[in-house]
Amino acid sequence: MTADVRALARRAKEAARVLAACTHEKDHALRAMADALDNRSAEILAANEEDLAAARPEVRAGRMSEALFHRLQLTRPKLADLVAGLRQLAAAPDPVGRVTLSTQLDAGLLLERVTCPIGVVGVVFEARPDALPQIAGLCLKAGNAVVLKGGREAERSNRALTAALGDAIAGAGLPPEALALLATREEVSALLGAEGDVDLIVPRGSAALVRHIQEHTRIPVLGHADGLCHVYVDARANLTMAHAVVIDAKTQYPAACNAIETLLVHETVADAFLPRIGRTLADQGVELRCDPAAARRLGGVRTVPATDADWATEFGDLILAIRVVPSLDAAIGHINTYGSRHTEAIVTDDDAAWARFFAEVDAAGVYRNASTRFADGYRYGFGAEVGISTGKLHPRGPVGLDGLVTYKYRLTGAGHVVATFQPRDRT
Amino acid sequence: MTADVRALARRAKEAARVLAACTHEKDHALRAMADALDNRSAEILAANEEDLAAARPEVRAGRMSEALFHRLQLTRPKLADLVAGLRQLAAAPDPVGRVTLSTQLDAGLLLERVTCPIGVVGVVFEARPDALPQIAGLCLKAGNAVVLKGGREAERSNRALTAALGDAIAGAGLPPEALALLATREEVSALLGAEGDVDLIVPRGSAALVRHIQEHTRIPVLGHADGLCHVYVDARANLTMAHAVVIDAKTQYPAACNAIETLLVHETVADAFLPRIGRTLADQGVELRCDPAAARRLGGVRTVPATDADWATEFGDLILAIRVVPSLDAAIGHINTYGSRHTEAIVTDDDAAWARFFAEVDAAGVYRNASTRFADGYRYGFGAEVGISTGKLHPRGPVGLDGLVTYKYRLTGAGHVVATFQPRDRT
Repeated sequence: MTADVRALARRAKEAARVLAACTHEKDHALRAMADALDNRSAEILAANEEDLAAARPEVRAGRMSEALFHRLQLTRPKLADLVAGLRQLAAAPDPVGRVTLSTQLDAGLLLERVTCPIGVVGVVFEARPDALPQIAGLCLKAGNAVVLKGGREAERSNRALTAALGDAIAGAGLPPEALALLATREEVSALLGAEGDVDLIVPRGSAALVRHIQEHTRIPVLGHADGLCHVYVDARANLTMAHAVVIDAKTQYPAACNAIETLLVHETVADAFLPRIGRTLADQGVELRCDPAAARRLGGVRTVPATDADWATEFGDLILAIRVVPSLDAAIGHINTYGSRHTEAIVTDDDAAWARFFAEVDAAGVYRNASTRFADGYRYGFGAEVGISTGKLHPRGPVGLDGLVTYKYRLTGAGHVVATFQPRDRT
Repeated sequence: MTADVRALARRAKEAARVLAACTHEKDHALRAMADALDNRSAEILAANEEDLAAARPEVRAGRMSEALFHRLQLTRPKLADLVAGLRQLAAAPDPVGRVTLSTQLDAGLLLERVTCPIGVVGVVFEARPDALPQIAGLCLKAGNAVVLKGGREAERSNRALTAALGDAIAGAGLPPEALALLATREEVSALLGAEGDVDLIVPRGSAALVRHIQEHTRIPVLGHADGLCHVYVDARANLTMAHAVVIDAKTQYPAACNAIETLLVHETVADAFLPRIGRTLADQGVELRCDPAAARRLGGVRTVPATDADWATEFGDLILAIRVVPSLDAAIGHINTYGSRHTEAIVTDDDAAWARFFAEVDAAGVYRNASTRFADGYRYGFGAEVGISTGKLHPRGPVGLDGLVTYKYRLTGAGHVVATFQPRDRT
């Protein structure tokens, strides 16, 4: 099996070499992929129905959540969205071949930095079949081959989707090995060892899964284990705005990685802000874990004393830690200590406070007067995302097409040699 | 000692937070650093003389090469170059705060991608004291704190340089902890374990050193272990140009990572090209390790049969492997199999061959009609470099200021929440 996966990765690498030299052929394939989902929807929905049938007893027995079941389900409207998404990708400009730096080094000697595909991308994702065409489409548009492993609950759906998309790719004259689907956990282990053939691993799912993958491969990993985000309500915050932002960031979808876990409030606005937000949060069923200064201002609602562990915990649920801080400096210090470099927001009308917050907070997204829930490829206008990266080197944040290409330097001369070359002064 | 290094890394992290919010203050510090090297040159050269005195018996005993001794030596002209380099950095535009993407997501909701410092950078470099002010200057200009460890032969020089530069940084009102020098190998081991405080490790030196570091840290590593570069002389090459490029790429500085190890020649030009290049290379003392097809064309000069291992070896010396290939496809296949993703060149007058070579060769630099020796931060116009990266994610190639910054997304709204947000169609 390990040998099989290695061979599959090699064929993906060969396919990636072909894709790297493609331009409009990729768009042709994307339109064919859209048509295939459309034409073969009955077959895909039937496979999905088998997955759903196997899942229903799990939901009844309480072993699968309603939310997970909902994500597992493909519907005609969901398929229509996927078809539209692939057509949009086909119409988007090619992310490959963009010149991001250009310097004439000498007469006839031109240096350019040009975007190019990453190569072979391995994506391990949750039991959510609609992610498959999105990831496959993004990778193909960026000229990458992709090896996928979805959650086992979606296995039949994923096989049907991969069959339809792979046939479309082949029909468009591109190598079908550019899209491969793994079936087992053992195959994922083999993929993690395919250094040299696989260029990037993107794990999506639980923090435990992401950490396991980070610790078991020497291939670069893109993604994030934790999403521990904060909203800081500054001394000069518009408190109505702060109220709306905090409620959205905590309650609109508490399981999301970009929902907040801790609310920081400057002490000068704590009296004015905390009682009201506390009532709204409590009304919405949010458990409030407070430091003493916050608890004191929340007399009317039930609170729980916050422990040190709470500042470092991604609850992923209707639980919010609350801390009163004496200064902007203390808020930034707290965030840089406990945050997961994902997305951090300040609510303030003070430009100087915002400038310091933006410069000094270390995170992929730093927001002013907006909810952390905006950290999402769709809302950023990237069309879709393969994941959200909290790494410090490129790419960072929601990763769409731009994050799926890297660059090579292009140097074109007329026989130039360094023995006779004198660089101009240029820093 | 481990605890000491951890504390030093923490202080560097605090210093990095200060630097992240600086703009022109960094340039003020860079000019002060230039002045300090100028004013304290006697002290620095005296320290260097002690290093040289300790090194001379090693050279006489054959334990240190003349080349290494030469790199160890600081001179007044070398110091003057360093002073000029720091002044150039001070005058350069700030790489931090550049907006590389900007989208209006909604009325009053602006998303920008903005360059920012990486944080704390650890650099392990060779016994070459002139690299210290260059690396320190690049890191500071990019808003990063830096922890350095130079080769032990340059210990006294590095201490004198660090003292002068650190005092200048403090005198300019910036935290001197932004520049720290480690003394021992044990301290480097401790630094490699300082995940969370150190954001990037840059190893420079032997492939063995780089591999050791890659295998002993979970901090991202920027650099390259091998420099296995090729020149491919295509069927439609200008052979005079090919001759000049090959001689430069092999002989101008054979120990450099961007010198070539293997020459690939298309069979249709092998008869015309190989006898002449073979004579020139042999005259310059280059040992030629040839496949049978190449050896057959090199009757006049001494050749050695190439083994499979030769294609995978970075000789770093006056040795060149030579192979005749039947096609452009075979040349690209050879390069992608044996190359180290560093720098690869084609000599051709054929635009279609160049287009395929550029698209399909997987390397940080892909050149046409120019010597691979151009892969160098100084020649690329980056002023200096902290290293050359063969990684596939940003940064890639010679790493100057641009490679020392990453980005964060800046989102500014007026209380925007996702609950009421509808993204526009945009891919």
